Amino acid sequence: MTRSEFQFIDSLRQRFGAEIGDDAAIFSSTAEKETVITTDLLVEDIDFRRTTAPPLLLGHKALAVSLSDIAAMGARPRWSLVSIGVPDDVWQTGFVDQFYEGHAGIASRYDVRLIGGDTSRTTEQIVIDSIVVGECNIGQAVKRCAAVPGDQIFVTGSLGGAAAGLRLIERGAHLAEQKLDDDDSQKIDHVLLRQLRPEPRVGWGMVLGEERLATAMIDVSDGLSSDLNHLCTASGVGALIESSLLPIDQQVVELCGRRALDPLQLALHGGEDFELLFTVRPENVTRLPRRVDGTQITRIGEVLLHTDGVRISEGSRIWELNPGGWKHF
Amino acid sequence: MTRSEFQFIDSLRQRFGAEIGDDAAIFSSTAEKETVITTDLLVEDIDFRRTTAPPLLLGHKALAVSLSDIAAMGARPRWSLVSIGVPDDVWQTGFVDQFYEGHAGIASRYDVRLIGGDTSRTTEQIVIDSIVVGECNIGQAVKRCAAVPGDQIFVTGSLGGAAAGLRLIERGAHLAEQKLDDDDSQKIDHVLLRQLRPEPRVGWGMVLGEERLATAMIDVSDGLSSDLNHLCTASGVGALIESSLLPIDQQVVELCGRRALDPLQLALHGGEDFELLFTVRPENVTRLPRRVDGTQITRIGEVLLHTDGVRISEGSRIWELNPGGWKHF
Repeated sequence: MTRSEFQFIDSLRQRFGAEIGDDAAIFSSTAEKETVITTDLLVEDIDFRRTTAPPLLLGHKALAVSLSDIAAMGARPRWSLVSIGVPDDVWQTGFVDQFYEGHAGIASRYDVRLIGGDTSRTTEQIVIDSIVVGECNIGQAVKRCAAVPGDQIFVTGSLGGAAAGLRLIERGAHLAEQKLDDDDSQKIDHVLLRQLRPEPRVGWGMVLGEERLATAMIDVSDGLSSDLNHLCTASGVGALIESSLLPIDQQVVELCGRRALDPLQLALHGGEDFELLFTVRPENVTRLPRRVDGTQITRIGEVLLHTDGVRISEGSRIWELNPGGWKHF
Repeated sequence: MTRSEFQFIDSLRQRFGAEIGDDAAIFSSTAEKETVITTDLLVEDIDFRRTTAPPLLLGHKALAVSLSDIAAMGARPRWSLVSIGVPDDVWQTGFVDQFYEGHAGIASRYDVRLIGGDTSRTTEQIVIDSIVVGECNIGQAVKRCAAVPGDQIFVTGSLGGAAAGLRLIERGAHLAEQKLDDDDSQKIDHVLLRQLRPEPRVGWGMVLGEERLATAMIDVSDGLSSDLNHLCTASGVGALIESSLLPIDQQVVELCGRRALDPLQLALHGGEDFELLFTVRPENVTRLPRRVDGTQITRIGEVLLHTDGVRISEGSRIWELNPGGWKHF
């Protein structure tokens, strides 16, 4: 059996003593601040398709995925760098300009400053590496490793939208050229944008970090099932989540019926929703704000002992929740 | 005429007010320290070839080029991240392990800690993005923009080796499998290693920064002619360098004769030597150490007024020194 991406990262950690494994790396050289840094590599035809991801939205998404990592550390994003490699024919077009325009749009909304990067030529495919540096007060960064049994498990926003969007794109759907009153097209645009223009939960990340409300946190990038397992493994705990509590995107539910798609599968294993999955001590649950930046949170389960495994209940039945999300290898 | 990479970076700077254009970006959130960060994208078949760059050396080089950027800021490299994308068949081999082994080798020599990164699949080509974070005391970072007329121009080590190595690789040369006594093969190995395993001038960068000896600095990555022009443009000055003073790699001189290569062209326009090019106030020249980590420096010319242009003298003749180095676009 070939080694998975996650096994490889484990091997790096063991060989080099690297503190790898959170959404972002933490380093600090002063007594006041912790700096967190994350990098996300996006490769054409693996992570996006040129034909379906408009460059403006790609610029947005490249930064959004990294902002989501910084949010998952409970930190404030501050600075950004972009390395971009494109083939000659793409360089001749407006692609790179539109990419940076999209990047600048979301950067300015979150007050993130573009400070550098690199450009390179490639032979065929577009590659993008997005780097974001954030910061928080010393000891405030939220890792994956500190959830304890009894903690309540929460997730921001809704799940399944990005995966539904990807399925529809694979079936040939495009963003509507103009606003249509047609109810179905609006739902389709909604899930396409969840895939193509994800909104990182930057505000929630900062609140949870600053108020020290989350014991552990991760962003839902690989898929809830995978990311919950990552968090539980790092913390050495188990978990039980309840299927009926999952905030499945309502528009996904409505779109799925006629398309032979299962909303629960999309919500559990779909990935790229870029919501925050976090754990909270029971006594702190009442201190949680109801909304941040218009986004609600939902309690979906509880942290258990490691020996309880990571499971999901549906009515009276309980299953193992195995990681079923995105893996590169 | 299509827009060059450098024109594009200029346009970014103007549109987004981005402080882009030094070897590394500077940011700071405390009163004591400045943090510098750099990112370098290496793309297969553009920046290296899988058949001629052994993964161990590629891991070394990926970090070396970024360490060189940090050195060119007069800062101390501290932390590193690597994003790497490889196709499935490469993932199955020892490539990634050997790459990280090479990376770890040079990282430990310079006391740089690997703290994170990303792995991704690609369809065909290997891509690597190397990120290094360094730091220095506030106000100590050496930019490209502060050279003034009268400053003396210096360069570390020797020039032309990396370019000669590249030419030989293109002609089919490989590193010797075993040490040969043959004088010519030793020279060939020397220039191949200048290309495949460059040594960043980390010690010199730190000394020049800490002692505030350099008014402006850049690393020789694109080529002396290009990089001197970058520095002069950023500082709004001109320069005159003397051909006879250039520290052309002696082994390059000896190898070139029989190969119809011009050592001076390689030294001026070749690129990838990863030496440091810096300017020093005349009154500080005597304060310069003779060697750092065994590497000497050479005075090659003087900073002049902007109106004097960037030129090179050879005997009694003087030419414009136009950028002739590496451009991606």
